[in-house]
Amino acid sequence: MANANLRARDLIEGRAALIVIDIQASTFIDDSAVRAIDNMPGYRDRMLEARKAIDAAREAGIPVIFIQEVHRPDLVDFGRELDGAEDVHCLEDNPRTDIAVEQMGFRSDDYLIRKRRYSAFFGTDLEILLKGLRVQTLILVGGLTDVCVHYTFVDAHQHDYFVRVIEDCVAGSDIDAHEASLRAMEYLQSGAVRSLQEVVAAMRDAAA
Amino acid sequence: MANANLRARDLIEGRAALIVIDIQASTFIDDSAVRAIDNMPGYRDRMLEARKAIDAAREAGIPVIFIQEVHRPDLVDFGRELDGAEDVHCLEDNPRTDIAVEQMGFRSDDYLIRKRRYSAFFGTDLEILLKGLRVQTLILVGGLTDVCVHYTFVDAHQHDYFVRVIEDCVAGSDIDAHEASLRAMEYLQSGAVRSLQEVVAAMRDAAA
Amino acid sequence: MANANLRARDLIEGRAALIVIDIQASTFIDDSAVRAIDNMPGYRDRMLEARKAIDAAREAGIPVIFIQEVHRPDLVDFGRELDGAEDVHCLEDNPRTDIAVEQMGFRSDDYLIRKRRYSAFFGTDLEILLKGLRVQTLILVGGLTDVCVHYTFVDAHQHDYFVRVIEDCVAGSDIDAHEASLRAMEYLQSGAVRSLQEVVAAMRDAAA
Amino acid sequence: MANANLRARDLIEGRAALIVIDIQASTFIDDSAVRAIDNMPGYRDRMLEARKAIDAAREAGIPVIFIQEVHRPDLVDFGRELDGAEDVHCLEDNPRTDIAVEQMGFRSDDYLIRKRRYSAFFGTDLEILLKGLRVQTLILVGGLTDVCVHYTFVDAHQHDYFVRVIEDCVAGSDIDAHEASLRAMEYLQSGAVRSLQEVVAAMRDAAA
Repeated sequence: MANANLRARDLIEGRAALIVIDIQASTFIDDSAVRAIDNMPGYRDRMLEARKAIDAAREAGIPVIFIQEVHRPDLVDFGRELDGAEDVHCLEDNPRTDIAVEQMGFRSDDYLIRKRRYSAFFGTDLEILLKGLRVQTLILVGGLTDVCVHYTFVDAHQHDYFVRVIEDCVAGSDIDAHEASLRAMEYLQSGAVRSLQEVVAAMRDAAA
Repeated sequence: MANANLRARDLIEGRAALIVIDIQASTFIDDSAVRAIDNMPGYRDRMLEARKAIDAAREAGIPVIFIQEVHRPDLVDFGRELDGAEDVHCLEDNPRTDIAVEQMGFRSDDYLIRKRRYSAFFGTDLEILLKGLRVQTLILVGGLTDVCVHYTFVDAHQHDYFVRVIEDCVAGSDIDAHEASLRAMEYLQSGAVRSLQEVVAAMRDAAA
Repeated sequence: MANANLRARDLIEGRAALIVIDIQASTFIDDSAVRAIDNMPGYRDRMLEARKAIDAAREAGIPVIFIQEVHRPDLVDFGRELDGAEDVHCLEDNPRTDIAVEQMGFRSDDYLIRKRRYSAFFGTDLEILLKGLRVQTLILVGGLTDVCVHYTFVDAHQHDYFVRVIEDCVAGSDIDAHEASLRAMEYLQSGAVRSLQEVVAAMRDAAA
Repeated sequence: MANANLRARDLIEGRAALIVIDIQASTFIDDSAVRAIDNMPGYRDRMLEARKAIDAAREAGIPVIFIQEVHRPDLVDFGRELDGAEDVHCLEDNPRTDIAVEQMGFRSDDYLIRKRRYSAFFGTDLEILLKGLRVQTLILVGGLTDVCVHYTFVDAHQHDYFVRVIEDCVAGSDIDAHEASLRAMEYLQSGAVRSLQEVVAAMRDAAA
């Protein structure tokens, strides 16, 4: 079907922010076959690719916002999150829950938002920060494509942001779910799914 | 992967409500090949099946909440909804936007919630109503599986509700997207996707 | 105390909208001494003054948004609203709950937002509409100064809007509460409390 | 006016939580005459009284939730908070912004919620935590009575919680504003304003 009212949009409309979703230490220190949350093949490499987007954003003066999933050690805030495929994860007092500081080049003065649910907007101050930054376009990297990335995309979309996701820098619970979620994001905003190369080029243009 | 902390749950935990999502007149009066929003084959028949869930809920004393997508005729509230696959839809002053009163057996004293976005929780009083009804389990029917049903499920999940979706009574923009979203809901809550027959039986048990 | 970081602000910063809060038929058809909600002396006259702000806004091309408190006839959505000074009020099926169409010059194509709580932002699509209108300044009239006006002001403030309240066009449950709430709004934003004359002049300037 | 539908309520309905609002180090280390935020006479002593409520809650097994106002050092998240009476306050990197650990007996495993706005519900995970704790009654202490306490009360009320405020353990920007806000809370829920003695007794009864 053609949307006759579709307008051409730039990759970056207005000011942009890079949203780094749940790239935490566990990805790089845990090689066990049995995980609290399933990861598709190549997960770790795709998270490492996100570093390139972070560095490009910094060079272009685009703010980088790190999102970190955390849960209280007494499990009080899991809600329904243990009623499905995921086991206990991201406890606040576990070093595996830390942002992947070294791999992502995280700096102590970076914006950091802790969340208890999948969407980075749910029960957080992300919307306050984005309004303060006067941002209109969100560029997403991280994981899982089919959970926290997808549902953050949806909320950003519903809050009227232009949203892009860098295909090379996201990974899902499995390949089918990853691909289905990318299609779902493209359904919401045409041109949402972009390559790292395209995004880095657009960041450079924005800086120029 | 096995979630070692997974607890067995009943189809209906606590009190239930049936949420009828966007079953509007256009589904039954529009047979044009080109639509504002794509529908998968069998869409209309699946929406008609939802009537059986509505009737069973009424018999069991389970509240029925109709959700209606509406947009203001001056298009001011579309946000980013025209940036993707969907064209202008659900204008308030168009009779095609009405609830499918006859087919769904809608009554003037039924609960009705109008929404401007995909999730029935976003910018609406749904959470106020659910708290007032002291409901813990939401049973979803309607469309699209991969848009308003999926994203209402996600928000309900994030708000700590038990959520079920009746597979026979939802339909998507295409079959692949429909199936991928059902898998995504099952990922969030094991046993979320149920047959009409199972749900009707659970409603009868709840009433007894 | 002086806020050393206080910046001078215009009465209207960016684009404005006029928010008409809960000016409903009951104000003009009910002269009983015992009311569901107390009104201070002069209440009705102050609501009639709001019409001048509405007319001035229309002349200046400033959007007018009517807020209407409504509750479901089965009382399901009152939450804690009957635990205090207010009795049952604003039932949807009572003509006294209608917007005061004639006195306020309400038109069928005006923006109308129904709410179930005191703040016009709580469980409504007001923020969606304001984003669509690209509004930065909200000008408030209506009642009660110390309940729906005050708490709508607070939420608007927390959502980063510039907020003004027209002193001549709001009224409270009693005079002390009315005046205390005006002081509280002035505490939040210096210059928030303005006369009708000042606001009408600023609207004319904005149109010019 | 009498609310004919007013029901008698217990001081604690269902399970309770104690909400300690913005009792931060600055209260006890700053004796300058010029402050970023005005305090009424006796402010410090009233905050010290809050410790008694905290200790009583711990003895009764009632969860204690500390709220901490924090702002990012680059001022990006102040929104409209510098447009009124308050100057720059509560910067994250300033030790005066810390919870008053010693005076309040704060423990490292206490619940802590950081907020960027006045209401403890706005842009935070408070509602997630309260749902997890299955709490129905919130008991408020801290400051300012007329800002963060008042607006947290309002949001709690709108979210359907029973809310109580301990008169001895809150303090405002000035005495008039403090008293007006207490009256406003009592307007919302009859019996909301209670003495420390009454609340401690009710906590003991709840534990028994």
